[in-house]
Formats: sequence, C-alpha cells, structure tokens
Amino acid sequence: MKSYSALSGEQLLKEKEVLSAAFDAHKAKGLSLNMSRGKPDSEQLKLVMPMLDAINSSSDCNAAGGVDIRNYGELTGITEAKKLFGEYLGAAPDEMIITGSSSLNLMYDSVSRAMLTGVLGSQRPWVKEEKVKFLCPVPGYDRHFAICQFLGIEMINIPTTAEGPDMDMVESLVSSDPLIKGMWCVPKYSNPAGITYSDNVIRRLAALKPLAPDFRIFCDNAYSMHEIYDDTPLLNPLTACKEAGNPNMIYLFSSTNKITFPGAGVAFIAASKENIAFITKQLAIQAIGWDKINMLRHVRFFKDIAGIRAIMQKHKEILRPKFDAVLNKMEAEFSGTGAGEWIKPGGGYFIAFFARHGCAKRIISLCKEAGVTMTEAGAPYPYGKDPDDSCIRIAPSFPSLEELNSAMEIFCVAVKLATVESLLKG
Amino acid sequence: MKSYSALSGEQLLKEKEVLSAAFDAHKAKGLSLNMSRGKPDSEQLKLVMPMLDAINSSSDCNAAGGVDIRNYGELTGITEAKKLFGEYLGAAPDEMIITGSSSLNLMYDSVSRAMLTGVLGSQRPWVKEEKVKFLCPVPGYDRHFAICQFLGIEMINIPTTAEGPDMDMVESLVSSDPLIKGMWCVPKYSNPAGITYSDNVIRRLAALKPLAPDFRIFCDNAYSMHEIYDDTPLLNPLTACKEAGNPNMIYLFSSTNKITFPGAGVAFIAASKENIAFITKQLAIQAIGWDKINMLRHVRFFKDIAGIRAIMQKHKEILRPKFDAVLNKMEAEFSGTGAGEWIKPGGGYFIAFFARHGCAKRIISLCKEAGVTMTEAGAPYPYGKDPDDSCIRIAPSFPSLEELNSAMEIFCVAVKLATVESLLKG
Repeated sequence: MKSYSALSGEQLLKEKEVLSAAFDAHKAKGLSLNMSRGKPDSEQLKLVMPMLDAINSSSDCNAAGGVDIRNYGELTGITEAKKLFGEYLGAAPDEMIITGSSSLNLMYDSVSRAMLTGVLGSQRPWVKEEKVKFLCPVPGYDRHFAICQFLGIEMINIPTTAEGPDMDMVESLVSSDPLIKGMWCVPKYSNPAGITYSDNVIRRLAALKPLAPDFRIFCDNAYSMHEIYDDTPLLNPLTACKEAGNPNMIYLFSSTNKITFPGAGVAFIAASKENIAFITKQLAIQAIGWDKINMLRHVRFFKDIAGIRAIMQKHKEILRPKFDAVLNKMEAEFSGTGAGEWIKPGGGYFIAFFARHGCAKRIISLCKEAGVTMTEAGAPYPYGKDPDDSCIRIAPSFPSLEELNSAMEIFCVAVKLATVESLLKG
Repeated sequence: MKSYSALSGEQLLKEKEVLSAAFDAHKAKGLSLNMSRGKPDSEQLKLVMPMLDAINSSSDCNAAGGVDIRNYGELTGITEAKKLFGEYLGAAPDEMIITGSSSLNLMYDSVSRAMLTGVLGSQRPWVKEEKVKFLCPVPGYDRHFAICQFLGIEMINIPTTAEGPDMDMVESLVSSDPLIKGMWCVPKYSNPAGITYSDNVIRRLAALKPLAPDFRIFCDNAYSMHEIYDDTPLLNPLTACKEAGNPNMIYLFSSTNKITFPGAGVAFIAASKENIAFITKQLAIQAIGWDKINMLRHVRFFKDIAGIRAIMQKHKEILRPKFDAVLNKMEAEFSGTGAGEWIKPGGGYFIAFFARHGCAKRIISLCKEAGVTMTEAGAPYPYGKDPDDSCIRIAPSFPSLEELNSAMEIFCVAVKLATVESLLKG
C-alpha cells in the first residue's frame, strides 16, 4: 500500500472524500461497541465457575495449622495461599502477604502508607519531604499514574523500548535526585505495550543505586502467566534484587483478578522478609485480616500451580483469536501507509497503537462519533498527557470476535481519516 | 459480703493468704484460657454456613441491572446490597458504599485519605494542618485509637456515662479548637461498655458546631443489632445530623463480620449523598471495585432485613448465657466488696469491669500467670494508657461456657488478690 505522506494534496483530498464517505456509512449503522475495557470475557469467566463450589456449607473450613477460615485471624493470609501464589510470583511463602480482592487497592495502600508513615528505611514520612517523585515508564497503566496524581506525587516519563524502560535515564535520575522515591513498572506483558522486560533491564533495575535510601520499585506483575504469543520468561525481579544486594528495594504486586473473577479474586504482595515484617506491623493497624474463605476457595480450586497454568492456557486459546483479529486487520489496513505503528504484544490484555503524532485524540473522537468507545487518548501517560498525542490502547478481550471485527473496521477508517486530515493541515 | 476497705491490716493479710493459696491452686492446673477475643464462637458461625451455598457454579450471577458479579464494575457495590445494608444502618441505598470485608480497614482508609487529601469541605489535606486532633470517648475501641496513633493524630479522652460521651466537654472542645477534625464513637452497645447513646446525646452530637469546617464523626455502628439484654433503639445518627442541618458531618461504618463470617463479611459506609459522591470519586483512584460475589452471596442468603434479624436473635440465644455467666459470677463474688464495678451491657461483645484504681495491670498479669489471657490493661484508652489503671475488657463470646466459668474463677481471685495487695500498700 502507498504511504499517505507520498500523496499529493489533491490525492489526499480525494482520499479524504472516500474515507469520509466510508466513515459516514459506518456512523449511519448506529453501532455501540467498546474496545476500552481490559476485562475477561464471559467464556473466560465460565472456566472458573466450579471455584464457587470449592467451599460450601459442608466443607472442611480449616486451613493449614487448623486455622478456621470463617473467623478472625491470620492477618497476612493463610499458609496454603502464600505457598501457591508465592510460587506464582517466584517468592517464598514468608515473602508473601495475601489480602483482599484488589491489587490496585494494595498498591494504592502501599503508596499512601509510604506517604503517611514511610517505608522500611525512611527517615521520615514521604509527605514530610519537600516533594516526592516517581519514575513512570510510558506508555503505562493509567491507574498507576492516577494514584500518584491523587497523592500529589510528581511523575517523570521514562520512554520504553521493546526491552523495557530506558535504563540509562532511570539510573541517572535515581542516583542524582533523592526526591525520587518510587518507580512503577509492569515487567511482564506490560500495559499497554505487551512487552516483557529483558534480563538486562531487570538486572539493571535490581542494581540501581538510588540516592533516596527508601526508594521502592512498585512492580505490578499483573500478567505473570497471561501469554498470548510469547512465553519468554521474566527474570525474577525479587531474586535479581536480592542478588544485587538490594533485597528491600522492590514490592511485587499481583492478583487473580484476570485468572479467576475480576473484583472477586485475591490480591497479594511479595517482598523481602524484612519488608514483609515491616508491612505486617503496619497492616495490623489497618485491618484484622482479609477474606480467608476466598483464599481457600482459590487454593482448593487450583490445587497447585499446574492448575493455574491450565486455566491460563485456556485463556490464551480464547484471547488469541481476538488479538489475531486486531493485529491482522492493522497489518492489512496500515502496512506501508505510515498511518501508524503497533507492537505485537507477547501477552497481557492490550495492544498499543501509535498513530501519526497529533492524531490520537482525533481518532478516538471519530471512533466515538461512530459508536466505538476507546480508552481516552493520553490515558497511558502521567496526567493523561501523551506528549505526541499518538498512543492508543486497544483492549480486545471483552467484545465478541464479531463485535471486535466491526469495531476494528471503524477504527481503521478513523485512523486513516485522521491521518489524511493531519497531512492536509501540513 | 464485707467491703475490703473496711478490713484491718491484719484481716487483709489473712485474706491475702487465703487468696494467694486459691490463686496458686488455680495456677497449678496449668490452664490455657482466653477472655480477650471479641469474636463469634463456632455455634454462631454454624448458623450461616448455608450462605456458602448461596452462590455456586450453577447460580445466576447477575445482580440488579444485569450487573455480572463475576466481572469488573460497580465501584460502590451492587444495588441489592446497598438496599439491604442501607436498611440495616438506616440509610437510603444512594447513601451507601459497600466495600470489602473489613470495616476497620474502611475506617482506616477514610482517616488516612482525609489526612492525605482532606474530606468534602476541607481547605487542605489534614497532614497540612499544624496538628490534627480527635475526640475519643473512653473506654473505647483500641483499634480506633491505634489508627490515630499510627497517623500521628492527637487523641483527647472524653469520659463516658451510661448515656454516652460527656457532651458538655465535646461541645466545648469542638467549638473552640479548629484542629479537632474528628471524633470516634460506637453509639450502640459500645465497645467495651455495651451502652447505647441516648437520644439526647445523639441529638447533641448531630447539632455540634465544630470550628473545623471539615470535622467528621467516625461513627462505628459495629453492633447495630447485636442485642444481649436491651433492645433500646438507637436514634438514627444520619437522620439526626440531617435534621440538625449537619448532613455531611457524619460517616457511619459497619460490616457483617459479627453477623456472618469475621474476616469474610462485607463492610459498608453510610453518609450523606454529597459525602458519598465525594468519596466515590476518591475511591475510583484506589480500586476498580470490591467483591460483588460476596455481596450477592450475603443478599441471597439473608433475602431481607428479617433474615438478618433472625440470625441475630440466634446469636443472642447463644451469647446471653455466656454474658449471664460473667455477670452472675461478678455479682456473686464482688457485690459489696468494693473490688470493682461493672456495667451490664445492653449488647455487643464485651463487658467493661472497673477495678480499684491502680489494679488493672496487676489483675491482668495475675490472670496471665494462671493461664488466662485478658485484653491488655489500658487497651480501651488512647495510647494504651488508662489514667486510672482500672478498666478491664472482658470478651465472653468465644470460649465455651465451661472455659468461661473456669476463666472467671481465676479472674475473680485475681481481682480480689490485687485489691487486697493494693489496700495493704495503702
């Protein structure tokens, strides 16, 4: 296909006319489609329905050590859940705390508690610092950035390559600015680009020499086993930090929300024993404990790590055709046109599309006009500001394949139309 | 029985000898008993086991409005849970947010968020104030006070009568000190005294004219239907605040942790629509939502408010003999001796015993020596400091009646021995 930028003004005008007509035809259908929601579809949910029978009225309600899951106690979670989800994250049981259903909430809580009281090794609560800054690999997860914005934490964009964040920049910043207290990352199948950090990036992260003695990597390993195309293993970030002599520098978060039931899974944090001891003392102020019935429900259903893997294999079989549909359509429509670039994700829930600079907002607005809801332009960037107005996060998991195909038709016309409009403006 | 204070020095020495011998005999039994845990016993838990079948693998998983309880969404909870627990607390569904399992966590989170960002009407985050102070009716719930201590909030003791907190003192303080931002209270079957605030106290609380524009009553209605002896209704604090023109001044918290399963219940907050809108906007940063499966599990099991009442009636039948045992034993052993006073609680989970001043720590230490764990002396006071070293919180719910009787035997000897020792010291 010919690159749009090679077209003359007259050709572009003609192309615009054709695309506008196609767009109007789509719009006239009055569809209502959604490619914004990073949530499992109903087929995925069906796979884990038997978990709801795992604890019933005639079940033995004792967890390891005779813990009655129906009563208070076990602030840090039941042993069998620590074992199973520790194995899932590559942590020992005593490096784990299992909490409620939301890992986002666990992350928010970890940052807000650091603000109010500090972390292990803090000289003072972070709110007592002149300012607190976080490094934010971009594009990234909007909800990580929203936490920082809400708490008044200044965010610094870190560009990301196919290997992970720009480590020269990260190293230079953390070793020169003591107000940099944290860094977000999604090391496996990152949101939204779907890349996995290389061993080299993980090792360099683990070997950081931050000026702040209480710097923490807030590592959201949300998609640890959520393969779509690429099963490249992630170098264990906890182990890497230990080996680099920085065992306390990292918190690893995850949950089963995209394995079992979103909103009704279990969430967990893995960290060094020292960190876990420190956090446990603080958590004792915040709660008596979390839902142990749901923890044991999960463990009895999965039995072991192979049980989790088996479910994730089925997720892959359900999701891959959807990802194929998006990627094949983009390949067919955009290849050679210069209308955009995209990254084939290894796994996760998203595809990152990069439009011609200055076009993302227009594309999303066109999609909306024609009945297709996309994630807001700018969402994958701190403060919702994509400096290039280019990145669009596509979430193929929730719609049916048919809906996805219809939505992609509209998306592709919108991308082309916005590109041509942009070229005509010069 | 004769008052210990009327005994001569010689008589006291003799009494001490007798009591010491009795104490040593108890100690020799090597018992291990516990009257410190405010948790339901296994009979209470059995009552709600059928709830575990309320949602199973063949259940309809749609809540009101077609909400799939198995997927993301509904940040503030499902409609039917808002209706049911709204009725439980005396709030409209749109005055409710249903969250995870822990109301303590919801309270911590509400205070910590106020510290970091303020509440509706705050001029600045509370951490930006010179200091933040809370009024703490005493004796009270140690975990409320621990939250304040953790977050550096200065606590001011407010004495409590059988009607509730000393309202002259509360009115005078909040109307003269703008740094007083909050007040804890447990208005029904208070922890640990088991009293219910009078209508007059609730009306005066609702009519407070705090100098701080963002003052909040953190009202923990943990025992709303947890009657043991007295079903005096609580004047609805939300309604009272509305009627007094202070609709936004109160947050009401509760949970089903002492109705269904401790740690695996659902927690909720009730507040004015304006507060709820403000809080919802903030919660959207903290989480995508909480466990809707557990919410619907509760609603399907209870069906309606009568379902909750029926369970609570059975709780009463289980708990009342235990409370009787403690109260009757105290009456039999202490009446007329001056060794202590106690309050017959209307309901809840505790009995407050007030020893001769300066004796509580010694009593608890003696109990420990003889194998009976009691709540730490001082626990019901801010900073763990009972100015009189007098109050002891007794939790009769969890041990069996037999264990309770054995523990009370030891407790009574410990109280008498400590009293005699104290009188001998002068």
